Amino acid sequence: MNQQQLLKQIKTKRSFLCVGLDTDIKKIPEHLFDSEDPVFTFNKEIIDATASYTIAYKPNLAFYESLGTQGWQSLEKTVDYIREKYPDVFLIADAKRGDIGNTSALYARAFFEALPFDAVTVAPYMGEDSVKPFMDYPGKWIILLALTSNKGAADFQYLKAEDTGEQLFESVLKTSQKWGNAENMMYVVGATKAEKLKEIREIVPDHFLLVPGVGAQGGSLQEVARNGMNNRCGLLVNSSRGIIYASPGEDYAQKAGEAAREVQSEMEELLKEAGLL
Amino acid sequence: MNQQQLLKQIKTKRSFLCVGLDTDIKKIPEHLFDSEDPVFTFNKEIIDATASYTIAYKPNLAFYESLGTQGWQSLEKTVDYIREKYPDVFLIADAKRGDIGNTSALYARAFFEALPFDAVTVAPYMGEDSVKPFMDYPGKWIILLALTSNKGAADFQYLKAEDTGEQLFESVLKTSQKWGNAENMMYVVGATKAEKLKEIREIVPDHFLLVPGVGAQGGSLQEVARNGMNNRCGLLVNSSRGIIYASPGEDYAQKAGEAAREVQSEMEELLKEAGLL
Repeated sequence: MNQQQLLKQIKTKRSFLCVGLDTDIKKIPEHLFDSEDPVFTFNKEIIDATASYTIAYKPNLAFYESLGTQGWQSLEKTVDYIREKYPDVFLIADAKRGDIGNTSALYARAFFEALPFDAVTVAPYMGEDSVKPFMDYPGKWIILLALTSNKGAADFQYLKAEDTGEQLFESVLKTSQKWGNAENMMYVVGATKAEKLKEIREIVPDHFLLVPGVGAQGGSLQEVARNGMNNRCGLLVNSSRGIIYASPGEDYAQKAGEAAREVQSEMEELLKEAGLL
Repeated sequence: MNQQQLLKQIKTKRSFLCVGLDTDIKKIPEHLFDSEDPVFTFNKEIIDATASYTIAYKPNLAFYESLGTQGWQSLEKTVDYIREKYPDVFLIADAKRGDIGNTSALYARAFFEALPFDAVTVAPYMGEDSVKPFMDYPGKWIILLALTSNKGAADFQYLKAEDTGEQLFESVLKTSQKWGNAENMMYVVGATKAEKLKEIREIVPDHFLLVPGVGAQGGSLQEVARNGMNNRCGLLVNSSRGIIYASPGEDYAQKAGEAAREVQSEMEELLKEAGLL
């Protein structure tokens, strides 16, 4: 999928919402344990209820790996279900991988071949050769961690380099632009730092940004849109817990749909405000 | 397993070798494809041939994930096999994970509960809350990336901070010591930078270091031992390709055993030289 197709999705659905499928076996409604694969059943119903308002889904690998082989199976079924029923949706593996070149090539195989994801999140610490193997797949994307939304982001991401005066996340943004371009790279930018978005937008004017942390992690959607949008929208805003756990009961899917629709409405207004609709 | 037990292993086997189970389905001998699970069969025979010379095994998760559910099954079988037949061996999940706190907690569940690893490699970019959940398991270890052995290490790990004059990998070593101690943390230090080991050893005198990159990646074992050992050895030196692919033929396991034995002999001399045997 290229930027143009992504923008088309955004305009069609009047949304730039990404739903994070952080499906925790310890949090899903009890009645689902009657089904053969409770995690997949949960995901399937969440997806059906939210797909009209959502342009991307982002399963977080940790939640599936914590269940071992069974979890990996639920993930495969989820991905296959989305691919078959909603082929236009953008599918992100939130895996935060990154290793030496030959190993990153295997992770690329895992998420772009064994599983048909469109994009994978990657950690930058190990540099160029840990990132580039993900770019050998035309039409696929890497989403590089730049500035994250958690407290620990402050430990290293803000360290200012002696030579350039750039903070580490700025160095990541600048250096990585030599490795790829706005058609195969995006960046993770934590929404709780919305005041930083303007600054980041100046460094990467054309790239899509994946913005987690709106909702449960405390970011404001309006602030994100006003500081982070570009003329192709350029934003995928993720919500996980705020949508998938909107209700703990049997009506969980319906409530998730309502929550997604609410976010979508707000996004529609923001897209209009930016002249994109 | 604590440091004392690890040292006991090292003294008993007269070795500080870690064998990296980077088992690539595209590289294992053809005759194994007659077996039901070629990756597991390969690992099992490699393990049996090398266990006398090896104190740790380190499956690299990328190689298993690249095969989807089937790969995860091979990994589970490999880990169970080692746990049952060689219960004293130190088992490292080379996963290079790291995410916001609640997600890292799930990765910890994946590698310390769903799979019974002793240690997991973790990337430091997201800071304290991405690392600490792995420390909630008594007797388990995290192995934090500090200085890696790949070319891309130069992109960010050497950036020098304005305030402290420390390079990023030094900041990682220093800051992370506030999060854990030498009984629950180790560091990844690439062996191709053996000249750096002395410097690193001064910052972390008591921690074990996991040193990849001896052999195929070009590091010298002698240099590593002379610059990196402490009075509890303090080193786990990894070799992957140099051992597991010592021969492409039906004698692969035998040759792997010979290759491991050769490294072990060299290690025995180095342990004697250091007065540890």
